[in-house]
Order: sequence, then C-alpha cells, then structure tokens
Amino acid sequence: MYEKVKEYNYDPLIKNDEFLIIAGPCAVEDEDNLLKTARFLISRGIKYMRGGAFKPRTSPYTFQGLHVEGLEILKKVKEKTGIKVVVEIMDISQIPYYVENIDIIQVGARNMQNFSLLKALGKTNKPILLKRGFGSTIDEWLFATEYILNEGNPNIILCERGIRTFEPMTRNTLDISSVPIINGITKIPVMIDPSHSSGRSDLILPLSNAAAAVGASGIMVEIHDDPNFALSDKDETIDFNTFDELLDSVKTIVNAMKKKTI
Amino acid sequence: MYEKVKEYNYDPLIKNDEFLIIAGPCAVEDEDNLLKTARFLISRGIKYMRGGAFKPRTSPYTFQGLHVEGLEILKKVKEKTGIKVVVEIMDISQIPYYVENIDIIQVGARNMQNFSLLKALGKTNKPILLKRGFGSTIDEWLFATEYILNEGNPNIILCERGIRTFEPMTRNTLDISSVPIINGITKIPVMIDPSHSSGRSDLILPLSNAAAAVGASGIMVEIHDDPNFALSDKDETIDFNTFDELLDSVKTIVNAMKKKTI
Amino acid sequence: MYEKVKEYNYDPLIKNDEFLIIAGPCAVEDEDNLLKTARFLISRGIKYMRGGAFKPRTSPYTFQGLHVEGLEILKKVKEKTGIKVVVEIMDISQIPYYVENIDIIQVGARNMQNFSLLKALGKTNKPILLKRGFGSTIDEWLFATEYILNEGNPNIILCERGIRTFEPMTRNTLDISSVPIINGITKIPVMIDPSHSSGRSDLILPLSNAAAAVGASGIMVEIHDDPNFALSDKDETIDFNTFDELLDSVKTIVNAMKKKTI
Amino acid sequence: MYEKVKEYNYDPLIKNDEFLIIAGPCAVEDEDNLLKTARFLISRGIKYMRGGAFKPRTSPYTFQGLHVEGLEILKKVKEKTGIKVVVEIMDISQIPYYVENIDIIQVGARNMQNFSLLKALGKTNKPILLKRGFGSTIDEWLFATEYILNEGNPNIILCERGIRTFEPMTRNTLDISSVPIINGITKIPVMIDPSHSSGRSDLILPLSNAAAAVGASGIMVEIHDDPNFALSDKDETIDFNTFDELLDSVKTIVNAMKKKTI
Repeated sequence: MYEKVKEYNYDPLIKNDEFLIIAGPCAVEDEDNLLKTARFLISRGIKYMRGGAFKPRTSPYTFQGLHVEGLEILKKVKEKTGIKVVVEIMDISQIPYYVENIDIIQVGARNMQNFSLLKALGKTNKPILLKRGFGSTIDEWLFATEYILNEGNPNIILCERGIRTFEPMTRNTLDISSVPIINGITKIPVMIDPSHSSGRSDLILPLSNAAAAVGASGIMVEIHDDPNFALSDKDETIDFNTFDELLDSVKTIVNAMKKKTI
Repeated sequence: MYEKVKEYNYDPLIKNDEFLIIAGPCAVEDEDNLLKTARFLISRGIKYMRGGAFKPRTSPYTFQGLHVEGLEILKKVKEKTGIKVVVEIMDISQIPYYVENIDIIQVGARNMQNFSLLKALGKTNKPILLKRGFGSTIDEWLFATEYILNEGNPNIILCERGIRTFEPMTRNTLDISSVPIINGITKIPVMIDPSHSSGRSDLILPLSNAAAAVGASGIMVEIHDDPNFALSDKDETIDFNTFDELLDSVKTIVNAMKKKTI
Repeated sequence: MYEKVKEYNYDPLIKNDEFLIIAGPCAVEDEDNLLKTARFLISRGIKYMRGGAFKPRTSPYTFQGLHVEGLEILKKVKEKTGIKVVVEIMDISQIPYYVENIDIIQVGARNMQNFSLLKALGKTNKPILLKRGFGSTIDEWLFATEYILNEGNPNIILCERGIRTFEPMTRNTLDISSVPIINGITKIPVMIDPSHSSGRSDLILPLSNAAAAVGASGIMVEIHDDPNFALSDKDETIDFNTFDELLDSVKTIVNAMKKKTI
Repeated sequence: MYEKVKEYNYDPLIKNDEFLIIAGPCAVEDEDNLLKTARFLISRGIKYMRGGAFKPRTSPYTFQGLHVEGLEILKKVKEKTGIKVVVEIMDISQIPYYVENIDIIQVGARNMQNFSLLKALGKTNKPILLKRGFGSTIDEWLFATEYILNEGNPNIILCERGIRTFEPMTRNTLDISSVPIINGITKIPVMIDPSHSSGRSDLILPLSNAAAAVGASGIMVEIHDDPNFALSDKDETIDFNTFDELLDSVKTIVNAMKKKTI
C-alpha cells in the first residue's frame, strides 16, 4: 500500500484554506507573447504561470515545443516579471536545469508511471506537480506518488486531468470524484486541469467552478492572448477576457467555500 | 439530429435561477419509515421525495422492491404529508397508475433506450425525469430525449448519474462535464445524482457542491433515517444529520451562483 | 450468485462439437430481397436467418424497421423456404406472436437488463438468444441469464457483441475473452456477433475466424445481396461473395477445432 | 498522419506465412531456472525467450526485477543455449547495453509514448517490439511507431496487450480487432500477448488460438517451470505442460491458416 501517502504529515504546498490558480499558454511560443501573458497574470494577482518547452505529442510531425530555446524564454520572462513558472519535464537528464530554473516541475500524464523519473525527482526537494495518467486508476496515481515520497521529497501537488472513456464529446472525462476521494486519503493537495480534461474552451469556466466547490486545491488553465493563433491546443485555450470572467466566477465559489485564491 | 432538443423553447420545469433538491430512500420499505422521511424533508423545505417501488436489480435474488404495496405506501404518505413523489417506472403497463398518482415519473438508466416506453411517456403530459444510461453517450441521451419530445411531451428533466469506466473506486464515474455541455445545447434542465454515480456516502456532499457550481439544475440524493438498515444501496445513502450538513453546504454554493433552492 | 447458470446441466441448443452460423440482413426490407437471401443461405447449408422487424435506433428519425409488415414477410419467407428465423423482440406484448412464429427470440443489447421482459421470456420454452449489453459486465450478463433460467426456460444462447471503450476505430470493442470465461463457468453456449461489435465489414472474416478458434459456439453475421442499398448498418454488412469466402475460412478453423458447422 | 507506417515496404521481421512464438518468465529470477526454461523452449523449437530484468511496477514495494544482475543472467543463458532474448528497456541510458546483448528490445505499455526513448531507439537498427499502451488508441500506437520509423529503424514488431475497460473479469480487455485493423493499414507485423491482457492462466490457450486465427503474426506468453513460485505475475503464467498443450493447439490453427510457427 501507499503508506507514505496515507500518513503524509508535511506542511502541504497549498494550505487548507487556499486555492491556487496556475495559468498560461500550452506551449512557450515567443518572448513577447509570454511576457504579455506574464504581465497580465501578475496584474490579476496570479503568481504561477504554466508554459511548455518540450511538448509530448502523439504525432512526430506536430509542433513539439521550442525546447532549450523555450526554456531560455521562460527564464528571461521570469527574471523580468518575477512570475513563478510551472514546466513539464520529459527526461531525467533535464533535472539539473529544472531544479535551478523552474519553480514547480510538472510530470505529465504520459510519464505518470515513468518510475525512473519519479525516483530521480524524489531525490530533489523541488515542488512536483504530478498529473494523473489518462489510462490510470486513482490507486496507481497514489502509488506513483509513493515513488516520489519514498525517495524523500514531500513537495507534491497532484493534478486530475481526465481519464479515457467512451464519451466522445470531451477529449477525456474529468473524474471529479477523484478529488474528494484523495482528500479522504491524504493531505497532499489535489488540483484540477479543466483545459486538458475537456479539450473545450466553453467548459473551462463551469468546470473551474466545480473544482472550487468539490474541494480541489486549485486549477491549472490554458490561456493565450489570441487562442486562434496558439500553436497548440487552441480549442481548449481561453483568452484574457474569458479568464477575467472565470476569475470572477471562481472567486465567488472559493469565497463561499471559505478559502482564498492564491 | 435531435432538433426538438436543440430548439426547445418551453418553460422548463426548473427555472434558470432555481436548484431543485429531491431526496428520499432508494426503495420504499414501510409506511412508518417513509412518513418519517417525508416529514423530515418537509421540515427542511424539500418538496419532492424519491422512493422506488420496483427496483431493477442485477441479481434476481436481491430485494426487488415492494411493488404494488410500495406504490400504495407512497400514495398514503403523499396524502398524509402533501409531499410530491418521484418514482421510477418499469413498464408501459404502469403508465396509467403513474400518471394518476406520481408527480415526476423517473426513467432509470437501464431503460434510457427502451424506446417503446419513451414514446408512450411522450404521449402523456407528466413530468419525466430521464436518467442517463451508464453505457450511453451524451448524444444517445439527447436522442432518447428527442423520442419523448417528438411525441409531444416537453416536461422533461435530465439526470446525469455516472458512466462505466475503468476506475474502480467509485461505482460509476460522474461525468460532470455533461451538465455544461447540455446547458450549451438545450434549455431542458439537467440534474445530478451523486448517490448512484459514486456509490459512496462520503462523496455525496462534495459532489452535490460541485453540481451546484457547475450549473446543474438540481440534485437527487438518497437518504435514510438509518442507512445501516436500508434494504438497498446502503453504502451510498446518508442519514438525516449528514443531509442537514449537505443542505447547508449546497445552499451556500447555490446562493453564490445567484440561484435559490426549491 | 448466478447458481442456475453455474449448475446448468441441460442439453444445450448448440452441442459441444457444433458451430452455429446465423446470417441475414440487419432489417427486413422487402419480400423479394429476403427470399433471395434465404435461398442463398439454404444453398450454403445455413439453417438460421436473422432479420429485424423492429429496430431499436438511437434516433427517432432513423429507419425503425417494417414492424408488423416485417414480421409478416419473415413468416412468408419461412413458409416458402423452410429457413428458421432469429428475430429481436422489443416488448412483452409481442411474446405470443414470437412464440408462435419465431424460432429463436433475440433479446438485444439495450434490453439485456429489461428484467420484466427476461422474466416473461423465462416462462416460455422458446430458444432465447441473449445479447450482452454494450455497457454491461460479464457478471451482469450472467445475472440476466439467471433471470430467464430462474423462471424455468433453459433454452438459452448467449451472444457477445462488444462493449463500449475509448477505442474509436471500431463501433464497440469485441470482448473475445468473454467466450472462454463463460465456457469456464457454464455449459450455456456463447456465440459472437462480429458485425455489431466492429461495425466494419472488413473485420467480419478475421473476427469470425477468431470466434471459431477461441471456442465460441457460433457466429451471427449481417449479409445483404447489395450492402450499398441496405437500409441500416450498411458499413458492417457483407455481400454474398464475401460470405462465401468467410464460410470457407471459418470452416477450416472449425474443422481444425474438431467441430462441424451447423 | 503516420505516412511511413502506411507506406512501409521493408521486409518484415516476421514473414507473411510465419507465426512467431516468444515465451519465457515474467521476470528473470535465477540462472538455474532460466537455463531450465531456455532448454525446455529450445527442445520445443522455440527460438526466442522473453525475460524481464527491470520490472516497471505500480508499487515501489513490489519486486522490481534483478536489474543488472538479471541482464547478466540473461547473457549467460544466451551464451550457454544459443536462445535469443526479448527484454524490456526502461531508459535511454540502457540502449548501448541492449544493442549489444539483446535480440529484440521491448518497449513496454507504460513507455509507448515515451517519445525520447522511441526516437533514440529509432536511431539503432535493432528489432523493437512496441507494446500498445493500455490507455492508448490504435491511432496513437501507430503514431508512436511512426516516431521510430521516422528516425530510420524499420525493424519493428507491434504487440497488442489489452486496453483498460470497465470489465473486471480480466486485467485488461484484449482488443483483438486491432490486429486485422493494423493488418489493413501496414505490413508491420502485429503479435498478441494473451498473458498480460487477460491476467488469467486459464485464458492463455484459447486467446492464443484466437490470435492465430485472427491473423496475428505471433504470440508472446509467460511460462514458468512452477508458476506458484514465480516472483511476479503468477496468476497469468502457465507451466511447461500447459505450454505443450498450447503449442499443440496453436499449431493446428496456424496450419489451418497455412502458416508455420517459428
């Protein structure tokens, strides 16, 4: 069993009365765009920006991210604005760079059971955001968490992002029940990613509301100043105005839950 | 396509700013118990009580409901207390009795594509609560709705109750995204049943909160004055005290959504 | 538990060394066509023809079968050719007609848990072909079988026709493992329907071969003299020439399994 | 699209009229055992033995394989018996050792979308056995194949090993339809792993028969001289006697398909 998950008694990265909002583009595209997004987020009180440099893509012929150039852009924007960054890691060899330059290291759905990577990240003391695999059970996800904990790193945030089902109207089916189930098992915070689970920009706001109400510790959403020009995931990306509406709406629910957004 | 669903322009049974709460036992067991539950619900401002007389059960050897005796008990409790009743129908032959004595006729998940039944109910003018089949897509559910509408009955409420997936920690996976998807397609109200979807009493409260926040038109929950003695579905049934907590919590979210509970 | 399924010790409708082939159109369309198909099948040694008169369809606006007219056509073709017919039943009210005129009464996937229907069929002594629901587990399927057995009718054939999964390349996912699983539990014969499970005419032959090799008691396939003009399910229907190829291929496997086709 | 998969015109590793049988223990345990198994397989005409040195396991506390010691044992057994070995790779860093010592490099289900690993293997000229991810569609699997092909390595064998579904009687649901679907798209050979898909030793024989009949290019099965003492996957492992029965049975089907086992 995942004993260390169950007996978790560290100070969690997101406190009981906090609701963390992470936002940003699917992939880092260029410095101007990212700078614009970072400044917009800071103006709204958002402290963490997501942004992918290496994109794991189904097809080898789809845009794969800017790679090292993307990481350099993230670094510059971070220096210029002070925003903190959440970036997906692809490989053990990237750990030293990420430990030095990234604030929260994301392990993507496809790597949830990349046990070599989990163990190596367990030897760092960096915050790890562990996404659920789209073909993985809650049990397997918590066992993957145990791999990190077992190596000594308690700085973990979980992130539900939907599972594979027969329903074709959404990219994946958001398993919202996983949040209260995990809240009943461990004090490790669990967020929701409404963008990747649904794949539909029109569902981001209501699913974010649901995340706040069900007891999630936060949301991670994809935004872009002009989603039509986003190089990846444009169907699930919202623009700045829609993000403002979302923020209003989510804050009302977060307040009703006697929490505050961070 | 389900044109009549899309172009629905009747006055829906649950208005835009309303959130309907239906509660009651899985199965009608005896008059005293049901009377107690009905009076408790009325004291909390709940106007609709659910209760099954015929229970569709996987095994022929499991308690199948009190049948006609159960319907008679429901009728008596209705007369004594004035509570309205929501009861599942099993067969076309029951329609005349239900039309006379039942306030909302429920079509269960296993009958969602019982097209003969849907067409016959479409010829009545009774409110129909159509649950989603656990193996059915949203599209199929809306086509089933079209079968009722097409016969002339616009008094429909939809109810999401979870779909079959590989995740074993819940009985079914609540597909919460179906609510905003349907809200974007039609004005027919859609509720959530957190009891049958999860099969776990500890998840009813957070999932009810999520239902209110995601834009559902209501919830239907299983309660029992002593869940340990419930003849069916005891694992997903909550007691009166827990229902009071749920009511407090849900009302806070409903208010934050600028709606009122009915 | 499904005790009567496990302890089944009747003489099964399909013997241990037999492999039953049922073929025919998805829906009965007109007498000429059906007569042509029946005569073709008889010339190939096939004794049972399938044909739907009432088609349960997702949309109310799709061709729903010829209803009573379809049943009459089936009756005539049966009289003229001596072929036996397998027809899906939709409702308890149809039982008397079916008992008199139909050789094998099919319960479709959507009605697998229509318990009123199962019980009523259990009171007849007609052969019942019970298809697996596309959202149902093997356990639920065997419990549905128990409903029929428990009323006294042991003349049952099971038919696997695929389950709902996330894979979009086939209409459903043929769960071929269900056949040896059921063979290990009961002596009730279990067939495979490669047409409805795959929804693709190019897969019928290889899946029929697999059915024979895995230990199924037979197959049920959709054929049409001109699939392009079939009123329903044209994508999964094969023509007479392809059926001849299939027959050659399947017989080779059936012989290798030391069985004979019937 | 996966153009290089579609236009594949290399000489495949398994010819059109061949059926490859790979067998061996889930995990390498000790030299004596493995030597015994290798000699048994050679006596039966089997040329390839599987054996895991690094086992990706859900829980960090389950037996994880003998690691480097396991690889050394495989090497010795290979030298002593001349059997060829199929071993799962876990990480890019292992490639040089595997290229030198392993005959077929297996990419496991959890690594099917480990794109860095796929690209690196595409730069070798070693035979790669690419298993389907249990949460992956056929399309995604073929795109993963394209990652390898695109780097220049055409020596690929695919292996279907089941997908996640709601059916709990098997560990995964063998998607047997994937074989004829892939046969219709590409000439890359596709095998079936009945052991991992079903997780049940009683299903290995019938599912192996089905594999041969459906047009698969081979099977990979887990065997152990005493399954009760196997350190992993004992429920899905068969003993030598059962393997002999399987071989008899499968060869009959393979012959009926006008192929020969290799």
